[in-house]
Amino acid sequence: MAANLDNLRVVLVAVRNPLNIGAAARAMSNFGVRRLRVVNPYEVAFQEARSAVGASALLAKAEQFETVAEAVADCKLVVGTTAVGPRDLQHRLHRLDDGGRAIKRQLNTGPVALLFGSERYGLSNEELSHCHWLMRIPTREEHGSMNLGQAVAVCLYELVRGRKTAPAITKTSPAKKEKNAATSGNVERLTLVLLEVLRTSGFVKPRAVAAEEKLRRLVRRLELNANDAEVLLGMLRQIAWKLDANQ
Amino acid sequence: MAANLDNLRVVLVAVRNPLNIGAAARAMSNFGVRRLRVVNPYEVAFQEARSAVGASALLAKAEQFETVAEAVADCKLVVGTTAVGPRDLQHRLHRLDDGGRAIKRQLNTGPVALLFGSERYGLSNEELSHCHWLMRIPTREEHGSMNLGQAVAVCLYELVRGRKTAPAITKTSPAKKEKNAATSGNVERLTLVLLEVLRTSGFVKPRAVAAEEKLRRLVRRLELNANDAEVLLGMLRQIAWKLDANQ
Repeated sequence: MAANLDNLRVVLVAVRNPLNIGAAARAMSNFGVRRLRVVNPYEVAFQEARSAVGASALLAKAEQFETVAEAVADCKLVVGTTAVGPRDLQHRLHRLDDGGRAIKRQLNTGPVALLFGSERYGLSNEELSHCHWLMRIPTREEHGSMNLGQAVAVCLYELVRGRKTAPAITKTSPAKKEKNAATSGNVERLTLVLLEVLRTSGFVKPRAVAAEEKLRRLVRRLELNANDAEVLLGMLRQIAWKLDANQ
Repeated sequence: MAANLDNLRVVLVAVRNPLNIGAAARAMSNFGVRRLRVVNPYEVAFQEARSAVGASALLAKAEQFETVAEAVADCKLVVGTTAVGPRDLQHRLHRLDDGGRAIKRQLNTGPVALLFGSERYGLSNEELSHCHWLMRIPTREEHGSMNLGQAVAVCLYELVRGRKTAPAITKTSPAKKEKNAATSGNVERLTLVLLEVLRTSGFVKPRAVAAEEKLRRLVRRLELNANDAEVLLGMLRQIAWKLDANQ
């Protein structure tokens, strides 16, 4: 079964070159992906890309967000792309073909965000902390960093490649787990209440940014289903309330 | 077996935009392909691409030819790329993944040329006539024509995809996740401290047995790894301590 590409959101984070935004949009159009989101773009670049000759309807309809959290709030799976090798990462890292298979399964059950970072720095640790896991295009170690538009094209190709022969989804438990996955919005809410509780209880120092990212990654690793996320959020709210009441 | 990419020649025919020549060269470098050939380029574009800031050694060593015939003279297999559907072609047309497989086989026995045409017209009938067969990237029929640099990137990705020699990447593959799973003892410790916290905070009534079982199942569903279980246990102990201290 072909993946439902209408559920895919391509999210460009802090991109600075209008040509790259245009190139990403063109690759999306080539491969039949329509939902483009930009987070905190260099404003001039975004407007320039939009008003370029031949700019597509796709680009005109691109949605703009202030933060990664807002841009992925409706998504059940958030995947980051990186040129970095495994030794520097805190996340699970998949090869593009393995990751692509997991994304295709999830696309048939709900929205998936695929994140691309800025041309110069890629995705920051804070931005990465919103991701469930990461994918890497198998480039050479000595020259791993791809042009943004080319990286988008290669990733989308991986998702449409072999569509006719793609195996049917088996009803295994992992697939079921993905089907009921909590939205990123709910997982983020849970993360923030947990953070509050940990601060009140003194486990985390106020304004410890690294701790916040670490916590965000930990919560994503749990791959919560929607029900459990709700139950856990209820627990944490009660704990937070009790801690406050006792102060 | 990994294909011998030293036998691959990427041949750009009548390309006019220096940025596209540069982008093709960058994708080649990313994927470890070194031999670039240009046929009858727009001379200014070629010189501009060569002298661009950051232009690679690969670009400096690019070979220039007057005709396709000369550019592919040493090759045993010549493959053209096209955005056109099968009905307009005189050639055998392969899907990229099928074609890629055939190219990889041939690369282990001798030189192969992969041809890309001009941005506006693609490869002409004369140029195509030098090809053994053609490949098409599976783009949408309504918008089939890809940006040149992106098309090169996607084709080269197809040739390196699934290489056994690609860096081993998963930091935590599913199998590894199982391998590092927290012990039942630790998961149970975590469950009991969580239960204590939930009772103290009033989320769970004292002696609510069903709640305890529900909680135990929920914690198991998280499939925690050993590290995360330890971190979460630390968090819960701190919260429990704070709740008690506040009573």
